[in-house]
Amino acid sequence: MTETATTGIENQGLMESAFVVEMVRQMRAIDPYGQYDSMSNAEVLEPFILTKEKKREIPIIGDPDEIVIARVKVFYNAISALIESECGLMAVPLVNLTHEGFGRALITVGKLVVMDRTLRDVHRFGFPSLSKMKDEGDKVLSVALELIGNHPKVAGL
Amino acid sequence: MTETATTGIENQGLMESAFVVEMVRQMRAIDPYGQYDSMSNAEVLEPFILTKEKKREIPIIGDPDEIVIARVKVFYNAISALIESECGLMAVPLVNLTHEGFGRALITVGKLVVMDRTLRDVHRFGFPSLSKMKDEGDKVLSVALELIGNHPKVAGL
Repeated sequence: MTETATTGIENQGLMESAFVVEMVRQMRAIDPYGQYDSMSNAEVLEPFILTKEKKREIPIIGDPDEIVIARVKVFYNAISALIESECGLMAVPLVNLTHEGFGRALITVGKLVVMDRTLRDVHRFGFPSLSKMKDEGDKVLSVALELIGNHPKVAGL
Repeated sequence: MTETATTGIENQGLMESAFVVEMVRQMRAIDPYGQYDSMSNAEVLEPFILTKEKKREIPIIGDPDEIVIARVKVFYNAISALIESECGLMAVPLVNLTHEGFGRALITVGKLVVMDRTLRDVHRFGFPSLSKMKDEGDKVLSVALELIGNHPKVAGL
């Protein structure tokens, strides 16, 4: 919990960035029983932060549970939502995993694949810090928007 | 079994078409224990044929088992293999299903989505006849090749 407090102070500006706001929104959207209602935004995103120490505690081989898979989907849903708000075209995320946590994540806009990633070790999904997570999201977003800009016809199909 | 025999006679030409040959090849590829070794090609493809009578026997609501899902993948793998042999670019199929048998099937070539389908009632996956199956495969194939022809740059990415 002290960790959350520090994270909160460090990342005050970060918490208001479009990507992080969208991540919080997506996390709260998959919370039908209101378990996160009493949590701050930083606390809601805490499970995404996997410091080196925390990562070391998770076995290298393991099956991802439903909660981790939901988190992976939240990450790609948030990116898709931002793509959509930036370019006005529908972005559809698709996360395809085996039960062992290997698979593929795709985002399509029209007939254009704007992101295509191989996923592995999904049971250890996480980022060293909130700002690293935002960087990662923004990187995917900018590549996607560039692709859409270069091939607007295919994206509009 | 009499049905298989009739199917065999009716579809002799059909059995030698590129699509059906590829389907047989894909089915035999997922048979590590050689259970199909003693079967004819027509017999290997028999599970894909779901006449109206057979379909009626399957409950409307049901979860698809591993074998049906494997068959769905064989169908889209075969189409992908043919796309690849026609245009020389790698075609990657992706079948994403919930346990209830709903989902999405995609084929991508480079950054181009050449096929994007919604799947439903996968536990009742099948075609009225072998020739209908071939027609369906050929239809997807021709749409895909047209898309690649129109957007070769995106397909080559």
